[in-house]
Amino acid sequence: MTEDREIGYLLIHRSYEKGALSAEATKVIFPLGEKAMQVVRQIKEMQKISDRLRKEGKRIGFVPTMGYLHDGHLSLVRKAKGLCDSVVASIFVNPTQFGPGEDFQRYPRDEEGDRAKLDAEGVDFLFIPEATEMYPSRYQTYVEVTEVSKGLCGDFRPGHFRGVATVVAKLFNIVKPHIAVFGEKDYQQLLVIKRMVEDMNFDIEIIPGVLVREEDGIAMSSRNTYLSPEDRKRATVLCRSLAKGKELFESGERRASVLSHAVKETIESVNGVSLQYVEIRDAETLERIENVKRSAVIAVAAMVGPVRLIDNIIIGR
Amino acid sequence: MTEDREIGYLLIHRSYEKGALSAEATKVIFPLGEKAMQVVRQIKEMQKISDRLRKEGKRIGFVPTMGYLHDGHLSLVRKAKGLCDSVVASIFVNPTQFGPGEDFQRYPRDEEGDRAKLDAEGVDFLFIPEATEMYPSRYQTYVEVTEVSKGLCGDFRPGHFRGVATVVAKLFNIVKPHIAVFGEKDYQQLLVIKRMVEDMNFDIEIIPGVLVREEDGIAMSSRNTYLSPEDRKRATVLCRSLAKGKELFESGERRASVLSHAVKETIESVNGVSLQYVEIRDAETLERIENVKRSAVIAVAAMVGPVRLIDNIIIGR
Repeated sequence: MTEDREIGYLLIHRSYEKGALSAEATKVIFPLGEKAMQVVRQIKEMQKISDRLRKEGKRIGFVPTMGYLHDGHLSLVRKAKGLCDSVVASIFVNPTQFGPGEDFQRYPRDEEGDRAKLDAEGVDFLFIPEATEMYPSRYQTYVEVTEVSKGLCGDFRPGHFRGVATVVAKLFNIVKPHIAVFGEKDYQQLLVIKRMVEDMNFDIEIIPGVLVREEDGIAMSSRNTYLSPEDRKRATVLCRSLAKGKELFESGERRASVLSHAVKETIESVNGVSLQYVEIRDAETLERIENVKRSAVIAVAAMVGPVRLIDNIIIGR
Repeated sequence: MTEDREIGYLLIHRSYEKGALSAEATKVIFPLGEKAMQVVRQIKEMQKISDRLRKEGKRIGFVPTMGYLHDGHLSLVRKAKGLCDSVVASIFVNPTQFGPGEDFQRYPRDEEGDRAKLDAEGVDFLFIPEATEMYPSRYQTYVEVTEVSKGLCGDFRPGHFRGVATVVAKLFNIVKPHIAVFGEKDYQQLLVIKRMVEDMNFDIEIIPGVLVREEDGIAMSSRNTYLSPEDRKRATVLCRSLAKGKELFESGERRASVLSHAVKETIESVNGVSLQYVEIRDAETLERIENVKRSAVIAVAAMVGPVRLIDNIIIGR
C-alpha cells in the first residue's frame, strides 16, 4: 500500500573540491513508522531527546562505538534493537583513551558509510559529538576503575581504561539509556564498564554482545584494515591458538598454566607475530586463577607487524 | 475544612533498652497534599521513586548532607523547595572523604532530630543509604576533578575531594535530580561539584546556597559542636578576619597579597588558633589571582584547639 510509506533522503556522497561542496542524495522510501535515523551532534539536544523518549515510556538502548563499523558493531545494534523501543548509537573516536604514540590520528574513519549502515539497521538516533564539546578547555574530570583496569591491556596501554571509563560515563549522562551493549571482543573493557556501572550506581543494564569473527577466524576489528595481506594471514594464529586452548580445556585440562602455555607456544611459532600477553582469568571478576573451576576467559594481545591486535575466548561457559 | 486533612504518624522517640524496642508515636494532621516525608534506605527504591517522579513531569531538587543538620542545611532545603516540585534530601556520612586520623568515627549523628527537621521543612523523600550498599566489597571506582581539587583544603585533606566527587556522582545517579543545592560554606567543594557536573555532562543544575552564620558570626557547621566554650570564642576570629578583608577591599584595596596579609595578621593575633591557609582566589575558577578584578573568594582554614574550621567570604560580587 503506497500510504504505508514515508519519503526521506539518503545522502550517498559528499565532497569538498576546491572550496565547493558537492552532494548527491537519493530519494528513499521507508515503511511508515520506520523513520529515517536522526543524526544528533549537540550534547544538550541528545539529552532533550532522551528525556522526551523516557517521558514517553520508551526503553532506550545504547551502542557506543568509535565508528568504522563492521558486522561486530552491527550485531550489538541488533541486540539493542531486540531489547528496546529506541536505539541510540554513537560514533566518537575518544582521544583520551589513546596513549602517546598510539593510533589516534590515523584511526580509520568513515562517517558516511557508518551512517548508511546504522540507518539500514534501524537505529533511531546517531550521536556524533565534537571533541571540543566533549573536552572543552579546563576539562579535568576522570573516572577510574582501579582493579579491573590492571593487568592485560591495562599494562600495555597506561591510561587507556581511565579514558574509556570517563568517556562512557559522559556518554551515559548524555544518552541516558536503560541498557547499553558492549562487545566481548574488548573483554577487559566490558568488565571495566560493568564494574563502573555497579560502583557508580548508573541505573543502566550492561548487555554483552558476542565476539564476531571474519571468515578466516580473525576477530572483527576496525584495526584489521591496517593489516597487510601477509600480516593478515599471520594474524589468524591468534584465533587458532585460542581454539587450541579451548580444545585442551574441553579434553579435561584445568591448569591455567598448561592452557596458557599451549596458547603461547602456538602464537610464538609464527614469525612476525610478537606476543604481548596470554592470560587466563576469571570471566566475571577478571581475577587471576590457577585452575579453571568456573567460566574463564583466555585473552591474548600481540603485535602483528605494526598492528596491535587482541582476541579472546570464553571457556567453561 | 476537616476534609482538607490527612492523618499521619510522627515518630517522637524510639529507644532500645535491654533488648526491647520502645517507641512513642503521635498522631499528626497534615494539610491534604502535604504528605509526610518518606524515608528511603535502598538504592534501587530511590531510583524507582525518581523515575516515577520524572515520568509524572515533576522537577526534582536534591540536597545531599552528612546529617546533624543546622539552619545552614535547612536554608538549602528551602532553596530547593522554592525551585522544585519534589525535594529529596540525603544523609550519608561518607567514609571515603575522610582521611586517616580525621573525624569519621566521631562525626556527630542525630538521625531522629534530622528527620524531624527535614519533615518540618516539607522534604518529600529522605534518602539514608547504608555504607555497605554504597561501598560493597570489590568497590573500586573513583571520580577525580584534578585541578580545582588542588590547593586550599585539597592540600590539607589529601583524597578528600576525590571522595566527595565520587559520592556525589553516585548520589546523582541514585536520586536523578534536575537541580542540586550545595552551600557556599564549602566553597571549594561547590566548585569541584560544578566542574564535575560540567565535565561529566550530568544533566543537573547546581545551585549555590549562601553561607549561614550563628549570632556570634561563626559559620554554621556540624563540627562547631566539637568546640569548647573557650575555643568557640576564639573561633570568632575567622569571620572577623574575613570581614576585615572585605572592608579593606571595599575601601579600594585590590592587591590579593595585601588583603590576605590583613586576614592572616588578624587570625594570628589570637592564641590557640593555628592558621592553615588564607587564600584569595577567583570565585568562579578558583584560580590564583594577584589583583581582585572580578568576584573573588577569601578562604581560610584553621585549627581552633583540636577542631578544624573553614570559612570564606565573597568580595566583588
